[in-house]
Amino acid sequence: MAYLNENYLKLKAGYLFPEIARRVKVFCEANPEAAKRLIRCGIGDVTEPLPGAVLEALHRAVDEMGVRATFRGYGPEQGYDFLRAAIAQNDFRDKGVEVADDEIFVSDGSKCDCGNILDVLGHQNRIAISDPVYPVDVDTNVMAGHTGPADDAGVYGGLVYLPGTPANGFIPEPPTEKVDVIYLCSPNNPTGATATRGQLQAWVDYALKHRSIILFDAAYEAYISDSAVPHSIYEIPGGRDCAIEFRSFSKHGGFTGVRCAFTIVPKSLQASTSDGKLAALHPLWHRRMSTKFNGVSYPVQRAAEALYSPEGKKQVRALIDHYMGNAKVLVAGARAAGLTVYGGLNAPYIWTETPRGMTSWQAFDKMLNEANVVITPGSGFGSKGEGFFRISAFNSRANAEEVARRLPALKW
Amino acid sequence: MAYLNENYLKLKAGYLFPEIARRVKVFCEANPEAAKRLIRCGIGDVTEPLPGAVLEALHRAVDEMGVRATFRGYGPEQGYDFLRAAIAQNDFRDKGVEVADDEIFVSDGSKCDCGNILDVLGHQNRIAISDPVYPVDVDTNVMAGHTGPADDAGVYGGLVYLPGTPANGFIPEPPTEKVDVIYLCSPNNPTGATATRGQLQAWVDYALKHRSIILFDAAYEAYISDSAVPHSIYEIPGGRDCAIEFRSFSKHGGFTGVRCAFTIVPKSLQASTSDGKLAALHPLWHRRMSTKFNGVSYPVQRAAEALYSPEGKKQVRALIDHYMGNAKVLVAGARAAGLTVYGGLNAPYIWTETPRGMTSWQAFDKMLNEANVVITPGSGFGSKGEGFFRISAFNSRANAEEVARRLPALKW
Repeated sequence: MAYLNENYLKLKAGYLFPEIARRVKVFCEANPEAAKRLIRCGIGDVTEPLPGAVLEALHRAVDEMGVRATFRGYGPEQGYDFLRAAIAQNDFRDKGVEVADDEIFVSDGSKCDCGNILDVLGHQNRIAISDPVYPVDVDTNVMAGHTGPADDAGVYGGLVYLPGTPANGFIPEPPTEKVDVIYLCSPNNPTGATATRGQLQAWVDYALKHRSIILFDAAYEAYISDSAVPHSIYEIPGGRDCAIEFRSFSKHGGFTGVRCAFTIVPKSLQASTSDGKLAALHPLWHRRMSTKFNGVSYPVQRAAEALYSPEGKKQVRALIDHYMGNAKVLVAGARAAGLTVYGGLNAPYIWTETPRGMTSWQAFDKMLNEANVVITPGSGFGSKGEGFFRISAFNSRANAEEVARRLPALKW
Repeated sequence: MAYLNENYLKLKAGYLFPEIARRVKVFCEANPEAAKRLIRCGIGDVTEPLPGAVLEALHRAVDEMGVRATFRGYGPEQGYDFLRAAIAQNDFRDKGVEVADDEIFVSDGSKCDCGNILDVLGHQNRIAISDPVYPVDVDTNVMAGHTGPADDAGVYGGLVYLPGTPANGFIPEPPTEKVDVIYLCSPNNPTGATATRGQLQAWVDYALKHRSIILFDAAYEAYISDSAVPHSIYEIPGGRDCAIEFRSFSKHGGFTGVRCAFTIVPKSLQASTSDGKLAALHPLWHRRMSTKFNGVSYPVQRAAEALYSPEGKKQVRALIDHYMGNAKVLVAGARAAGLTVYGGLNAPYIWTETPRGMTSWQAFDKMLNEANVVITPGSGFGSKGEGFFRISAFNSRANAEEVARRLPALKW
């Protein structure tokens, strides 16, 4: 008798974004006219074409694959040296942050890495998760059997939830109790908040004291405009001894359909066996990637490398300026509608309070039905997301302006 | 205190192919002249450039990504409909085998899928593995905690090993004891053997009787030339009720560096909860892929689709004919050297007995040092691989002919 992993049966409803897609589809089929003016500000998916430097690199790499002498088969599972070096140099060492080339693990997505990292950690860890949170961080722990069942609000037993609220600027403080693994995300998805140097130092100090590991999701770091905000957990003294960092080319390189990301596992990072022996995690993650992954598509790695060329950097800057220009327009529109908003300054997300005690799915339905705008209901990100919704700035300028016009026209 | 997954510490040495790469590197650095005549027949990596239809599709898709109107961001995690439909129609329904489009899950590699499939299965399953076997099948079970430690021969406690030997044509029979999950691979890597219809029927009957699940690795099915040999486990009556099948574009499309594969989970396939309730695995795998994967790169999916065009099919045929032509040359060379060989008829691998009781790593070193040819030692595939080595036919014709000349020149 083959057994299934019944932890999957604890998962509440569908994964958030497929559920949104389902509701939108139902609406569009029932309202074909309204569907024509639908604007999607839900899923955080880029809308602008790939930068020119990326297109050139892709075409060039495809040509190489058509000639025997330059054809490439299996690449190194951890990524080609040319890309690991470009990342470590440009994103870290040029900014005074110590990261070695071989501490970079290139992958096909940050979502995958955030989920897969649990492979190398023990099941006995006590897990702390911000609330609201990127749903993958919760769901992958449910799947791995690290939780009990969920209650009606979607709160899983066994996890330590760290509330992000207007009072703490949506960046939770370290708990008084002891936790072993901590998920932090800055710039935050969904709230758009960023952790200050002091807040991150408090977390690193906590982790070093308790020998905890911080899983630091920095997928949106390129959107930071405030020069005082850290881009990497490794800017914080002690960070290399307690943190794994996740980064992505998706949001600033326009790579959501191209697929490339990377994870940094410092060689100094250790975890414990059950009888208290410390061992480095780097060789475990190396082994995990060698055994369960075959490296990222070669043309895609060349495309990612091109983002670090002088031309590529300029084009990335233009993309970010475009999306953050949208964010500014959307923040103004939401404020004009009398809504209370957060974020939108160092992240492409506007975290908006639902007015008059409306639930976040009620706000979702109102926005869909009356404004024909798709947003993401905050409760999809956790119980502390209830009472909020997320507006994504990934769009054309015209669409952002149109949403900003429609928001105040709604009767809230 | 953060804990690591100490099952990783049970893993023996490195993953096979990195270990080979390490030895070859040491040899080449010590023998720069001999290194110049080195021929690699070790890792099963394709050597010929991508088919023209694939190159055209890649360029076209890259162009689409450079224009706002045709740009694609996040795709469906399970693969684009155009590719799922092309696969199900061409590889299955056109051949009279029932597979629905949405039973196809497109991924970035069969190695990933073979490892990740354990995510949706329970830890209490009793696992049966062919020996010799694709090392990923063993290692991922070790990592998941399904085994005890390994003995000196690399045999892990807790697994049921099914010996593949010359006596059974390297296709093991169902065991007398009860097992829950069974790994089968045909055409077999490493032995090149193929399971007959009768052998597969015996396995399906066993699985249906015991409600076991067969994990059927058919990554090399395109290399089958014998019309009596099944290409899919779903050709066998009852197969849809007991088997998951893994396929890849790597070996016949030349995609080892491009990255695309797929897995079939029939909707009729069920597994049990610990208290004996049956549930379908399809929604679990769907959820797994939605949550821990972001879909394959869009240009890559267009490239895979192009393999099913009339031009693409012709070009794939030519690639297979090329590699199987090499296999014929290599079989003849090994026989001329007095070696006993298997495989090489329906698979691009020649499974060769080491002469005079030589171990397979001794044969590896002899081939490397004296013939300057890299092969794969059989013991890397399991204890029953000891006494054999694998010669890969993935090469240029000139290299295959040169290896065939060098083999008889060696003093065995």
